[in-house]
Amino acid sequence: MPYVNIKITKEGATQEQKAQLIRGVTNLLADLLGKNPQTTVVVIDEVETDNWGIGGETITVRRQQKQ
Amino acid sequence: MPYVNIKITKEGATQEQKAQLIRGVTNLLADLLGKNPQTTVVVIDEVETDNWGIGGETITVRRQQKQ
Amino acid sequence: MPYVNIKITKEGATQEQKAQLIRGVTNLLADLLGKNPQTTVVVIDEVETDNWGIGGETITVRRQQKQ
Amino acid sequence: MPYVNIKITKEGATQEQKAQLIRGVTNLLADLLGKNPQTTVVVIDEVETDNWGIGGETITVRRQQKQ
Amino acid sequence: MPYVNIKITKEGATQEQKAQLIRGVTNLLADLLGKNPQTTVVVIDEVETDNWGIGGETITVRRQQKQ
Amino acid sequence: MPYVNIKITKEGATQEQKAQLIRGVTNLLADLLGKNPQTTVVVIDEVETDNWGIGGETITVRRQQKQ
Repeated sequence: MPYVNIKITKEGATQEQKAQLIRGVTNLLADLLGKNPQTTVVVIDEVETDNWGIGGETITVRRQQKQ
Repeated sequence: MPYVNIKITKEGATQEQKAQLIRGVTNLLADLLGKNPQTTVVVIDEVETDNWGIGGETITVRRQQKQ
Repeated sequence: MPYVNIKITKEGATQEQKAQLIRGVTNLLADLLGKNPQTTVVVIDEVETDNWGIGGETITVRRQQKQ
Repeated sequence: MPYVNIKITKEGATQEQKAQLIRGVTNLLADLLGKNPQTTVVVIDEVETDNWGIGGETITVRRQQKQ
Repeated sequence: MPYVNIKITKEGATQEQKAQLIRGVTNLLADLLGKNPQTTVVVIDEVETDNWGIGGETITVRRQQKQ
Repeated sequence: MPYVNIKITKEGATQEQKAQLIRGVTNLLADLLGKNPQTTVVVIDEVETDNWGIGGETITVRRQQKQ
């Protein structure tokens, strides 16, 4: 019955990677807490780097500084 | 004053259906709990089927299996 | 498959009112969008009036001003 | 360590405005609550006006009525 | 940099189980998507069974029916 | 019309600090984006340190290590 929301920046996660993430989190909740996988919901939000901030800066700016 | 967030898969809900959903939820909160419709906020998120999982699988995969 | 999160202030909603709200929202999603009730999840968060603001003021202050 | 999610309607906020918003909220949490800016995360969601309701109506309809 | 919100019913998850869940999800995001664990945030919400509905019923009612 | 959700650890923020945070964020959205304060909603969630993880560890453990 758990509900999991995962927010990541939109930077090219593939269909297969997202499917693996959903499977992995669902299994983790079953293994650690005995939660029923059939009613475990996982929703992934992919967020533009302009819309995500950490340390008071957007990820867009952080990526530019690293280059 | 309530805030409602509705997440559904992005599979063609129309502008009119979303307007009805917003009206319906707002009325429900007024009728059942006496909440003021004027400050009731409803936000609908439409999520790609690749990004929604249940039972450890994405909705994309589930839709394919049904066919 | 929808997921609905309803946030209201913690001001005495009863067990029965919350059950009615869950039933009502689930029916609405089935009637308007054809969503399967068996996998529709509704989570209600009850928030302290000190922790909810509108118009730049907490609900606690708003309630006091009305008296 | 705080996490802040800001939902606004998608009506043309610029990259610079969003960067200022992230900086401003991060500073506010540092100034008022002593929170470490380095681990303060801010995520902005821009929502279509069809998907946002207040007073039982979508913002799309509200904008049309004002004209 | 990911942010993960896990909602489960409040039914006795221990401090150790929650710590394992946080560690497990953080590792999964590092392994599958190469996300930096140092800025991965996980927040667990434990929700009363009266406030969680699936299939139009609260978990409280579901638990009673099973007995 | 914006909706802001702020999650912080439950470590003694006072009623006054939370009121200031609500006022500050509401003003920021008015100043930077011209958003109407009357319909700006801010909800603060205070989360137990056992339920918040960063770097794969709970805040409870992090606080103990610092001592």
